[in-house]
Parts: sequence; C-alpha cells; structure tokens
Amino acid sequence: MKLQVPKGCRDFFPAEMAIRNWIVDRWQDVSVRNGFVEYDGPIFETLDLYRIKSGDEIVSQLFHFEDRGGREFAIRPEMTPTLARMVAARANSLSKPIKWYSRPRLCRAERPQRGRLREFFQWNIDILGEESEIADAECVFVAIDFFRSMGLTAEQVEIKLNSRAIVSSLLHSAEIADEQLPAVYAALDKRDKLSIEAFAEMIGELGLTEKQQDVLLHMGEAKGEDGFARVESLLAGNEAGTNHCRSLRRVFAILKSMGVEEYCTYDMGVVRGLAYYTGMVFEAFGKGGLKRAICGGGRYDRLVSDLGGPPMGGVGFATSDVVVQDVLAEFNLLPDLSSAGGFFVIDSDAERFDDVLTIVSALRNKGINAQFSYKRQGVNKQFKQATAMGAGRVVIIESDYVTSKAVSLKDMKSGKQVTINVEEWLKNPFCEVPE
Amino acid sequence: MKLQVPKGCRDFFPAEMAIRNWIVDRWQDVSVRNGFVEYDGPIFETLDLYRIKSGDEIVSQLFHFEDRGGREFAIRPEMTPTLARMVAARANSLSKPIKWYSRPRLCRAERPQRGRLREFFQWNIDILGEESEIADAECVFVAIDFFRSMGLTAEQVEIKLNSRAIVSSLLHSAEIADEQLPAVYAALDKRDKLSIEAFAEMIGELGLTEKQQDVLLHMGEAKGEDGFARVESLLAGNEAGTNHCRSLRRVFAILKSMGVEEYCTYDMGVVRGLAYYTGMVFEAFGKGGLKRAICGGGRYDRLVSDLGGPPMGGVGFATSDVVVQDVLAEFNLLPDLSSAGGFFVIDSDAERFDDVLTIVSALRNKGINAQFSYKRQGVNKQFKQATAMGAGRVVIIESDYVTSKAVSLKDMKSGKQVTINVEEWLKNPFCEVPE
Repeated sequence: MKLQVPKGCRDFFPAEMAIRNWIVDRWQDVSVRNGFVEYDGPIFETLDLYRIKSGDEIVSQLFHFEDRGGREFAIRPEMTPTLARMVAARANSLSKPIKWYSRPRLCRAERPQRGRLREFFQWNIDILGEESEIADAECVFVAIDFFRSMGLTAEQVEIKLNSRAIVSSLLHSAEIADEQLPAVYAALDKRDKLSIEAFAEMIGELGLTEKQQDVLLHMGEAKGEDGFARVESLLAGNEAGTNHCRSLRRVFAILKSMGVEEYCTYDMGVVRGLAYYTGMVFEAFGKGGLKRAICGGGRYDRLVSDLGGPPMGGVGFATSDVVVQDVLAEFNLLPDLSSAGGFFVIDSDAERFDDVLTIVSALRNKGINAQFSYKRQGVNKQFKQATAMGAGRVVIIESDYVTSKAVSLKDMKSGKQVTINVEEWLKNPFCEVPE
Repeated sequence: MKLQVPKGCRDFFPAEMAIRNWIVDRWQDVSVRNGFVEYDGPIFETLDLYRIKSGDEIVSQLFHFEDRGGREFAIRPEMTPTLARMVAARANSLSKPIKWYSRPRLCRAERPQRGRLREFFQWNIDILGEESEIADAECVFVAIDFFRSMGLTAEQVEIKLNSRAIVSSLLHSAEIADEQLPAVYAALDKRDKLSIEAFAEMIGELGLTEKQQDVLLHMGEAKGEDGFARVESLLAGNEAGTNHCRSLRRVFAILKSMGVEEYCTYDMGVVRGLAYYTGMVFEAFGKGGLKRAICGGGRYDRLVSDLGGPPMGGVGFATSDVVVQDVLAEFNLLPDLSSAGGFFVIDSDAERFDDVLTIVSALRNKGINAQFSYKRQGVNKQFKQATAMGAGRVVIIESDYVTSKAVSLKDMKSGKQVTINVEEWLKNPFCEVPE
C-alpha cells in the first residue's frame, strides 16, 4: 500500500529542504544582527488560548484534538498567542525592550486546494515594552535588512507604511463610531484586492451614511509624499490626528537615517485586516507580478494584556517561507545549493581503503565535509562519483602511499593538481593548489 | 485569565532556545561533514501510515484528529515512517547510497508526568540502499563524531555494539522458534534495566524450555573482546552465525581505521526492543550516572518494503535533544551562550543619534550584530546597557563628530580603547585595538 503526503502539506526532499534551510537561516542571521533573540513554544497549545484571542469561530480553522484526559489542544496556527502567553508569564523579570524572534512551523485547517497550504513556516519579529517610534522604525528596518540580505533591491520590493491611529482620526472626523471600526478596517484591508465596484458594494453594507461611504471610497487614494501631505492637511485642526502624523513622519525620518528610505513609501491603502493593531502598520510588496503582501505587521498595544499579561505595547511583523520563495523565484534570486563542496577521498588501490577511512575521519574531526566511495572500484569510477556529488577537492591516495606518504590533491574548480605529503597537507587541507 | 504551556511540553525562552539551537546546529554540522543531506516531512501524517507500521495499538499513543473532510491524521511520533514513505515514493530516481538526516519535532501522547515529555526534538541519521559493513560502521562513526564535536571523550561515553543476526543464530541454536523472536527481543532489551529476578520472571512467561531460559538468562553476560570471542566459539560450527560474527568484526575494524575504536565495545546485552532490526545494533551510554541510552540504532532490511517501497536495506540511529542535554549537563559540557557579542553604538550627545542609526545600519548591512539604546541618555547609562547585553565592542560617537568624523572604539574584553576615523574603521570593524 502506497501512502501519500497529506494534501496541503509538503515533503521536503533534500533539494527543497536546502532552500527552506537557506531561507530560515537568513531569518536567523538577520534577526541576530538586529539584536533579536529566539524563542519558541510547543507545536500545540490549549484550544482556549486561541478561543480567547479570536472567539469560537476560530476553532473550525484549527487542527484540534483531545488527549486521553479530555484536555483540548490545537496545533498552532500563528505565533502571537504563544508570544503573548510567554511574555505575560515573565513580564516582570524580562528586561525591556524585549526583542524576540521565532521561526515557527504553523498549521491551518484550510480546505485542501491548489496554493492553499495547511502547513508552512513563518518568521516573527516582535519588540515589546517600547512605545517609541524607534521600535516601529527598527521593525520596518529588519524587514528591509532581510530583503537586502537576499539581494532584493528597492526596484524590486517596497514597504508601504501607514498608521491605524491616523486612519482612526480620519474615521472619527467622519463621525464613524468606534464599534464600527473593526468592520471598517476589515473592509479597507480588502480595498486593493477588489474592483472599485465590489469595494463600494462592501462599504455599502456597513450601515454608514453616504458621506461616510464617500470618505472610505477615496481614503486609499492617498499615496506617497503628496498623499501623506493631503492627509496631514485634512487633519490640520485635529490635535490627536496631527500628533499621529508627526509620529509617522518620525518613523520615516529614522528609516532615512538608517539608509533605507528608498524602500519606503506612504500608503493610506494599507490598514491591515486584524483588529488588534493600534499604531503604525506596514506591508511589503514585490514590484513584479506577485500580488500578495510579502510581509506585514504593525504596532499593537493591548495584545499582551488581553492574554493575561500586564499592559505592554508591542510592534512586530511576520512573513512565510512560501511567499519569500515566490518572490525570490520571481526575481531569479533563489540560490544554487546543489553543490555539496568538501573533499572526496579516493584509493588508487583497494589495499589503501584503510587510509581513505583514516583521512576522511581526520578531515571530519576538523569539521570538514569529507566523503568516500562505499564501493572499492577504479579511480575513474570514484572520480565520477566525486563529480556527481559536487566535491570541491579530490584527494587520491597513491598506491605507493605506504612508503611515500604522498597524496594527490585536485581542485575540481580550477582543475589544478598537486602531489603533497599527507601530514603537511592535513595541517591546511584548503591550501592553495599551484599550477 | 492566565494560560499555561500544555503539560509535558516546553516553552523555550531565549536561554533555553539558545541551548536547543546549539544542539540542533551540532546535529546539522556533523551530518553535513559526514555527507548526509537533510529531508523533512509534515508535522502530521495520515493515521494509516502509523497503523500500517505498528498496528492499531499505536493510535492511543498518538495525538490524532480529523479534518473537516473526515480524513484521519496524527502528529508524527517518530520519523521512520515518513522516511520510508518518502524513499518509497522516489526509490528509483534517488541515487544510492541515500544518506539522509532529519531533525524533526515529534509528539507522543504520554500521560503528563515528570520527566515524560509529550514533545521533543530528534536527530535521525539513515543510510539506505547500501548493505555493506562500511555503512554500518559509518553510522556508528557519525554518532561518535557528534560526541567528539561536543567534547565527550571515550572516558565519558561508550558505544555498545551487537548484531541481531548473531543473536538470532544463538537463539536458533537453542531451538527457539522464529515466531517467538519478537517477544524474546523485547525481553532481552529490558535485561539491563531489570533485576536478575525480575528478568528471570519475565523470561519464564515466554513459554520456553528451562534450557532455553537458561540461554537467555546468561546471554547478556558476553561483553567486551572476551565475550565476543566466547560467542564466536559458541557459533563455531554454525556457518551463518560465523559469517554474522565476521561481519561485526569488520565493523569494528573499520571503526578502528577511522580512529574511534576507543569508544566502541562489544555487548551481547544490546539487542534493541523494536521488531524491525535485522543486523548490527548499537546503543551509546554515558559512563556517569545517567542510565538511559544516549542514542541507539541499527540495521533494518525490510522497513521500506513494508511501507510500500522496493526491497531496500538501511541502517540508522536516533537521539533526542532531551537526552543530549542531560548527558552534557552531567559532564559540565553545556556551552555558555549568554553573551551576544557584537557592537553597541553610543551617542555622547542626543544630537548624534542619527549617526548612531547610520553606523548601526552600516554594520548590520555587513552582516554584523549591532545594537543601540532606544533611550537618549548619558554615555554611562548606554555603556551599562551595552555591558548587560554582553556587547563585544562599544563604539562612541564623539560630540565633535560632525567635524572630526572620529569614533572611539572600545574592546570590552581587553578594556583597550582607540579613537579612529569612522570611514577607516568601517572598512574593518574588527580591527585590532592597540594599547
């Protein structure tokens, strides 16, 4: 009986695994150099953790189960509840700002269909316990630092910034009530994914006046420096609104000092769908054909307290291995990871196989990748195997090795070869191979 | 409402995460330098995959669930079924030998109690499609290479080797029937964990003759070179048995050529509990107080075909993050990972904050870990923060920086400090700091 990988999940054969590791390692490098430390929780949490944050309707979107004791659990669909739970548990002993990252495997009970994965990997960056715009800007900087580390230029990706606080001020100016805001944000978040007609229809169902609908219809048009200036003049008489604009200006100024302004633009069309954002929000988009956001995040100020912790603001973002791979593929930036490199040790005579083992072991003990053929076969066949494995250097133990202690070292890239004493060579296995 | 981590699962706060990453990175380094490539499957598989390998009784030991379509899944409790499924799917196109490793997160529905974890990380090493003793020996070598990489010496850990084929020959000599073997192996596997009386009682319930029971009672006593020689003489008239002994001798000889014989010893007490082993088996033990095996594995020749693939032999082993951490702690070999290292950039004057941002960004863009204080505060307070974060080097932007372009660079370890032009310094941020 042949069994298959569950639909909507992926097998990672070595070629796919190498790409996944490469992306996940970049997440780590960029996090560490920006001063973040990693945390993780279990792959499943109590079902209540998700119910509290998102209500009962979330349950059908989770893979959930009971243990023998009747306790209810769910495989984690996102990392934020775990983050809030962990921070809440040690809120007083953790020194602020808390700069944490994670690279969780997440599962969602999507209907199995093309392009909708039930399992993926996510990168989460969060700064907690720091209210200033420096944290907001650093968060955006980390996303850009990641793009740069993969070779994505400002011609290829852009970050669109906005502020929920600014949006709120505008909505309040239009006398839209607080209790209508979650539905309004959810609608605004869909604006750029819909036709104008479909968006107008969605807006029409929110129970707003015509004038209010008109505000929503045109709000997303404010883009770039001109758009931002227009928003500022709209809010000129509104003290809170003016402060929110000043705050976002500060974020842009810090990003300029950090040398990444060319990636950043103002866009009133970005509001993020989730209810919990309270300040700056942002999304990154490729400038190619890919329509999905590459990453998104923003400031949230009540999440930790909602999950049982003290009042503590935060700012963060997330992206997934799937969308990163898509954008890299689009711009031809996926690395070639097919070559193993390292050494391949060959015996010119089956009698020398023990020496192959000794040398391979010595190299590995130095932390160096070293291979050999399991089969005792001719030098040419062993060479062929070395080539197929992408070896960087081949070492041939000559048949007079017992008396001469000589090995031939061939650099597979340059094709150059040298004969050298084995002890001498092992002192510096990556020594230069002369003509 | 305060929510907790599920019982039997662990939260990985940054300190614990650093240790987990350190162990899991060693697994990767050692795998790669020994020529293994990584694979992975999904966190859950179809429940049938586990039923086929282990029967219906396995279900109660799994966290299992249904999706909305009524399909049955389980969180993976081990990696072998996934490995066999993936290899079976591409058996013909994969070039042999297949040398694969994985570092899966696994879950088992243990009753929540002290020391019994419901979730842990495992390292799996497998060589498939190669029947020779070289593969058996290389597998053992990889385990030893891992021990060496963590600083565990032959005085601290040992690998006990045996062969299921040799045990079978001895059991056949005592006329124990094939259908009794699984129960006999399961009993022998418990021998060293029980008192002699308890072991004798267990043996007594297997329906064997007194003479057969006597063979089992004393079999495990054959240890070391003397023990192996005794086993060889017992099997002297038995051609198959003699061949099996010769094969295990060859494994020892290869390990000697690889320079790791001091870690290895013969032990008839090691048989492994699982039914699927067919040849060499081994377990590693610490020589301290820890009684559990640190890792274990062996040769299996029917696993892939049992799960729908072609007949293909394999040899492998596994260990877990939990037992590795326990043995490292016992021998005081856990690394100190508390220092972040890297740079910390300070402004001597809040006016210079923009320059802090520019320099931090420049360092990060070179892949270097660089931090700064979110608060504009005195140099001493910023210095204190740098020390608390374990910075390796502190950079102070002097108040006359606009005209002088000078920064002071302090090496926190040596305490030495130098003033240097910023452009000059950024060419080589790790430059030597003279007296």
